[in-house]
Amino acid sequence: MSLVVVGSIAFDAVRTPFGERERMLGGSAVHFSLAASFFDEVRVVGPVGDDFGDEEYAVLQHHGVITDDIQHVDGGRTFFWRGHYEYDLNTAHTDDTQLNVFGDFAPRLSEASKQADVLFLANIQPDLQREVREQCQARLAGLDSMNLWIETARHSLVRTIGGVDIVLMNDAELRMLTERPNLVRAAREVMGMGPTAVIAKQGEYGAALFTQSGFFALPAYPLETVVDPTGAGDSFAGGFLGYLASQGGEPDDLTLRRAMTYGSVLASFNVEEFGTERVRRLTRDEIDERFEQLRSMTTIEEVPTA
Amino acid sequence: MSLVVVGSIAFDAVRTPFGERERMLGGSAVHFSLAASFFDEVRVVGPVGDDFGDEEYAVLQHHGVITDDIQHVDGGRTFFWRGHYEYDLNTAHTDDTQLNVFGDFAPRLSEASKQADVLFLANIQPDLQREVREQCQARLAGLDSMNLWIETARHSLVRTIGGVDIVLMNDAELRMLTERPNLVRAAREVMGMGPTAVIAKQGEYGAALFTQSGFFALPAYPLETVVDPTGAGDSFAGGFLGYLASQGGEPDDLTLRRAMTYGSVLASFNVEEFGTERVRRLTRDEIDERFEQLRSMTTIEEVPTA
Repeated sequence: MSLVVVGSIAFDAVRTPFGERERMLGGSAVHFSLAASFFDEVRVVGPVGDDFGDEEYAVLQHHGVITDDIQHVDGGRTFFWRGHYEYDLNTAHTDDTQLNVFGDFAPRLSEASKQADVLFLANIQPDLQREVREQCQARLAGLDSMNLWIETARHSLVRTIGGVDIVLMNDAELRMLTERPNLVRAAREVMGMGPTAVIAKQGEYGAALFTQSGFFALPAYPLETVVDPTGAGDSFAGGFLGYLASQGGEPDDLTLRRAMTYGSVLASFNVEEFGTERVRRLTRDEIDERFEQLRSMTTIEEVPTA
Repeated sequence: MSLVVVGSIAFDAVRTPFGERERMLGGSAVHFSLAASFFDEVRVVGPVGDDFGDEEYAVLQHHGVITDDIQHVDGGRTFFWRGHYEYDLNTAHTDDTQLNVFGDFAPRLSEASKQADVLFLANIQPDLQREVREQCQARLAGLDSMNLWIETARHSLVRTIGGVDIVLMNDAELRMLTERPNLVRAAREVMGMGPTAVIAKQGEYGAALFTQSGFFALPAYPLETVVDPTGAGDSFAGGFLGYLASQGGEPDDLTLRRAMTYGSVLASFNVEEFGTERVRRLTRDEIDERFEQLRSMTTIEEVPTA
């Protein structure tokens, strides 16, 4: 099976109470593809400028990520984001955004990418997401979005959601999109737009999965130190869709739950260090070990009947 | 085994987006004892005035709650709280508080209450909580508190926490008490004050349990309609400690997890209707059915090893 992600490739400057970095490899497509690379073959589609060099390609390629569809813009500069987090680490404060080559991004999928089995539309303008969806034959498509598009391109976003199978969004954004404060109703309404599953990402509280037939939720893996939350949501999506891609076929409830758990595990490693630093040297054994820890942390034994 | 709770007995006036009630039986000790009554014998200690009549006693007694230790103050009026919730139902807004007899409350435990097996110190002034703890021989004591006491009686609260086994507080209050934004560290610091377990109540996100040896968390039972959140935390504590009391002995990890699940189940029924309306007509079968639903909603199957 194979997986393709379309999204941003960036350099990030981040300051948190635990330190700072002036220039790190980042962007939704990068965090996603590194996380997904532990499970399946990943192709990454996104724009870069002249400042994106061999070193950056090497990080992706070292994890087996196929970089053929990275769109190099001659004379351009790569998307740059500068932000910081306060003591509670819950909210990213943006200090500078330089869209650069990302401002004119028109995704072009190679034949191999068009034939990928699973597609992830990371958080980009919903018209672009829809164009990509229409180019790609993926049997399973997931989508992320954000408050900006809900505010400025709501109609387009709703149409785009209609063409995907799984929506992965923050719970506050699901509420904002549907104008429903109750998350169960918000998720049901999003499923009414077309998708068969909705994942509410809940930050430090974990994540919840809504499907037509059921509900599943799991807490975030408990960490004493969260160094940098940047990219956690995309790492979640990478672990989640990466595992689904590796399993093939139509995902059943059991497979979706395991995929949620892998997503949560990848997100937890992501936030332990700055940017991609922890995930870069992660091993599949470490992932499986934490999967099992998280599984046992959430297990409730049946009460024996008298 | 037996269980005693010391806390407020009140009349509540509540308005939510789903309706309003002008005068309902409420208070932390009431919500707790009704929830715990499904599991074990409960004694309730708290002050009431002349307006607390046969009808109110009957609600408690109908559930087997022993009301001998309710302190009737002649010529007094029962604690009254008026509040409302906005559309998102997360925050209670207080419109009026009349402490009445609760303002001079000096808890007196009968011999039977002093010999109870399990004690719950609901959210009252921490000096009073400590006096009660010193009167009571309970092998297991739990405590709730709130931001008011953290701000105005912090030193006393820390001393009181030192005398109990389990702290049950909102996660924001655990952070406030310890001045640690990271919940894992906050819980560890509270355990450093004496308790062997800390429960972080997380509202719509569920609850987390921290012990010396481990971590457990479960989501809230998903509800499409939350009518009135008043008393949810006390119903959680009632289900939790009620189940522990019924099991006897030192609770092991498996028992604590089941108790958390029963707590979550009772809280979920509590919020489905105003005040005690839903819990009043609840049955043990309904509780066990929802326990099993919540258990299956959180189950992750192991990944088979190759």
